[in-house]
Amino acid sequence: MADALTAETILSATEDVLRRYGPAKATVVDVARALGVSHGSVYRHFPTKFALREAVTQRWLDRAHAGLSEIATSREPPPRRLHSWLAELFDAKRRKALVDPELFATFTVLVGESSSVVALHIAGMVDDLTGIITDGVASGDFTARDPRLAARAVFSATARFHDPAHAGDWSDPAIEMVFEAVVELLVAGLRSER
Amino acid sequence: MADALTAETILSATEDVLRRYGPAKATVVDVARALGVSHGSVYRHFPTKFALREAVTQRWLDRAHAGLSEIATSREPPPRRLHSWLAELFDAKRRKALVDPELFATFTVLVGESSSVVALHIAGMVDDLTGIITDGVASGDFTARDPRLAARAVFSATARFHDPAHAGDWSDPAIEMVFEAVVELLVAGLRSER
Repeated sequence: MADALTAETILSATEDVLRRYGPAKATVVDVARALGVSHGSVYRHFPTKFALREAVTQRWLDRAHAGLSEIATSREPPPRRLHSWLAELFDAKRRKALVDPELFATFTVLVGESSSVVALHIAGMVDDLTGIITDGVASGDFTARDPRLAARAVFSATARFHDPAHAGDWSDPAIEMVFEAVVELLVAGLRSER
Repeated sequence: MADALTAETILSATEDVLRRYGPAKATVVDVARALGVSHGSVYRHFPTKFALREAVTQRWLDRAHAGLSEIATSREPPPRRLHSWLAELFDAKRRKALVDPELFATFTVLVGESSSVVALHIAGMVDDLTGIITDGVASGDFTARDPRLAARAVFSATARFHDPAHAGDWSDPAIEMVFEAVVELLVAGLRSER
């Protein structure tokens, strides 16, 4: 077993252990036991418990981001592409929060611990949005003078639909209508002449 | 002392007690002791501990709202009035969070307990915004077909600048710039022809 031990195997096991014991109690020894290896084998891949937790958090966030990058670089016209991207982000977060609330709560704790991982993740999202808005300026759909600032504004203005702090609102049946109204306002704002 | 005991006096004392002991430990007996009265005198005004906590939460939220209603009904042109209202809301929340973080944390807990009080408070805010947007449609500045839905969208889109869940971001020096960019986008969106 120890020979086949990859970082990916360790991260999968860590996610299982976190799910089972919760973020406060899960230890590297639990991960090693779940894999049938010594904790030294785990430390060979991840030098500290913190490094292991950061890596599993990054993997979880990256998994959420995979479909988004594809949308960001698709050929949809930029205003509709912006809508698709924001709707997919909201859907992905909502699915995670509602389908597996324990794991979502666990990662909400981990995300709170790993500010540098989260900052990188958010920067990646804002990069996606900046790309869509820049394409929209090139196509004449949008008029933003500063696409990156506009992207940060769009990301902030949709926090209620992607920030885990608002997960409690996501099962409200009316939220879909408010989401659509927010995106419509933002797209109209990006279109308008300044 | 018992003769002069008003609801307002009790609420002020309750706020002091909450500040001193925190929301988990503060009791009606503590409030009565602080006022030098029996706890029966307190219960004559507030029949349960929950009713007292709800009333003190409502008072705290109303205090925040006082200046906003004035702006909502001012004669400023609606687009600038919307900006003033949102800036005042953000400033008021930020002042509370940064100047007296213990009391802010206390009320964040209380707000989480009193969903009906909070729902009323939010409805009052959305009423203010609906009024401003309706005035803007009348003046020809805005084009919203459904001012109340637009108001809910504006309130949601600015959650990062008024929801206590985001208080950790409010001391970031860059947030002012993002706030201005969000409001600019929303006002441009409200102005645009549909």
